[in-house]
Amino acid sequence: MVEIQRKIDLKTKPLGSLGQLEELAAQICSIQNTLSPALKNPHILVFAGDHGIAQSGVSAYPAEVTPQMVLNFLGGGAAINVFSRQHKIKFKIVDSGVNYDFQFHPDLINAKIAKGTKNFLFEEAMSHEQLLICFEKSAEIIQQISESGCNIIGFGEMGIGNTSSASLLMSSLTSISLENYIGKGTGLNDEQLHQKIEILKQAQQNHAKPESVNEALQFFGGFEIAQMCGAMLEAYRQNMIILVDGFIATAAYLCAFKIDEAIQKNAIFCHQSNEKGHIKMLDFLNAKPVLNLNLRLGEGTGCALAYPIIESAVNFMNEMASFESAGVSNKV
Amino acid sequence: MVEIQRKIDLKTKPLGSLGQLEELAAQICSIQNTLSPALKNPHILVFAGDHGIAQSGVSAYPAEVTPQMVLNFLGGGAAINVFSRQHKIKFKIVDSGVNYDFQFHPDLINAKIAKGTKNFLFEEAMSHEQLLICFEKSAEIIQQISESGCNIIGFGEMGIGNTSSASLLMSSLTSISLENYIGKGTGLNDEQLHQKIEILKQAQQNHAKPESVNEALQFFGGFEIAQMCGAMLEAYRQNMIILVDGFIATAAYLCAFKIDEAIQKNAIFCHQSNEKGHIKMLDFLNAKPVLNLNLRLGEGTGCALAYPIIESAVNFMNEMASFESAGVSNKV
Repeated sequence: MVEIQRKIDLKTKPLGSLGQLEELAAQICSIQNTLSPALKNPHILVFAGDHGIAQSGVSAYPAEVTPQMVLNFLGGGAAINVFSRQHKIKFKIVDSGVNYDFQFHPDLINAKIAKGTKNFLFEEAMSHEQLLICFEKSAEIIQQISESGCNIIGFGEMGIGNTSSASLLMSSLTSISLENYIGKGTGLNDEQLHQKIEILKQAQQNHAKPESVNEALQFFGGFEIAQMCGAMLEAYRQNMIILVDGFIATAAYLCAFKIDEAIQKNAIFCHQSNEKGHIKMLDFLNAKPVLNLNLRLGEGTGCALAYPIIESAVNFMNEMASFESAGVSNKV
Repeated sequence: MVEIQRKIDLKTKPLGSLGQLEELAAQICSIQNTLSPALKNPHILVFAGDHGIAQSGVSAYPAEVTPQMVLNFLGGGAAINVFSRQHKIKFKIVDSGVNYDFQFHPDLINAKIAKGTKNFLFEEAMSHEQLLICFEKSAEIIQQISESGCNIIGFGEMGIGNTSSASLLMSSLTSISLENYIGKGTGLNDEQLHQKIEILKQAQQNHAKPESVNEALQFFGGFEIAQMCGAMLEAYRQNMIILVDGFIATAAYLCAFKIDEAIQKNAIFCHQSNEKGHIKMLDFLNAKPVLNLNLRLGEGTGCALAYPIIESAVNFMNEMASFESAGVSNKV
């Protein structure tokens, strides 16, 4: 770390004047244990799953939007397609548990557990066995991507109803109470938001207090969140840079962090979302997001938009001249 | 504007979920009067100049750093070179008034007024005639770049001592008093900062209250700030998108805005700098910066780092599918 900081400080700029870019550069050098970091074969994975709770009126959009948006991803027309193309990031969709039978597509990875979780208002979202399969399948996916030479990977999601799962996970794993942060998701009005809060409080009461991360995931789901959690843990084991997107991806990260706190070394928080609970979760994690653009879309869009900034951190480290090499006088 | 908003709202995403990107897209469509915006031949210009006030101990770096950094820009080793290359932005340096005789270089534009301004602690930084030549030369530069097909241009600067000029301009053109925002520039310690504040208060007392923007620029300089002001006004006349960098570039913009408020239609504020006065100036201008990375480097680095975000705003507008075209259900 001393050598990394020394290299940063000798670049032709006032000390610390590249701000958060310097912190990113130091983190990436530290992950890769080098003074010449590199981003290789970047990927973004979007995990998609359906949620039983969506039947209880917690979302502004109908559940069929989950498969429709997966088809939109496959067709290249969603925001994440546009931004991934712009930055030459490889983009794949993982079917973690969408209520639809997709045809083969080269960008679609089939890791379907079931056609949606159970409604956690009445029962556990998934079985213990399903949860273990989530971890197993997602770890395999990451191993394959790592073998392709990828060392930086972003995690996004799509699943109507999944801010509800994320909210209950957050409440289970932090001491922050639900009412303080439940947000409007994709766009509820005030009355619908009130209804969502009541439903989630009821769901929380209908379950025991989860005694572990696994139990929380089992109670509240979803398949895409459990798979993101497993995938992030595997990405850490493969020493990849982990790009965390918005509220739901951060909830998955929170689960991973509670399982292995060492993961924080490799995590970059790409943006602070407009979803009310996100800033509280970021604060809990002591995380400093790269962007703050009031996004609330998910899909990994924050990862894709932050990617060029992260690349800039690597580039200045590798390409900028030092005071000595450029013949520039340092501070008097 | 109604048609622009309608196109944004029909994209396959919850209403408003791309946050500030949607505002940028709407602004650019409105500037270009189109639903299919385009960024063409992007440029960043760095205006460099020396300041007589630098002899009075207001900067952490010696004055010779101004020409040394210009040579570093020409050699491709500065932060702005790295970020401009990354985003394929054309980068030029304007010698507005550096205390050095540069040799010919294809990236260097000679618009030198003199080898630095006079020390405004004792006299006016520049004459009225010099100010008019600043406006004239910078307008010519922008006309040429506009003729090359460029429709988006970023403004950065280099000049040891120029946070002092920018601070006095800000105080002259807003009602915010100096003590409230004078910052550490490139890295003063607390004692040096105290000295800088005393010197700038003294300089303010040694001049009458400026009665116009022109008078403020004449009193406090610098050549690079006056040229940026003139260049921004010409960029507005050419209907280019104007990218504003940090504290000093925003002070130049403030001058331009006070001359023609209509310029705000075309201005994008790229980042909120770590320099203390910048947030106050942005608040005064009702400006919402794209990035907040604690940068305090200048050189147009904020413009270059924000560029891919602005490009993303244009890309989603042009490339994303609509609910109808993608067959995705809209809100219930």
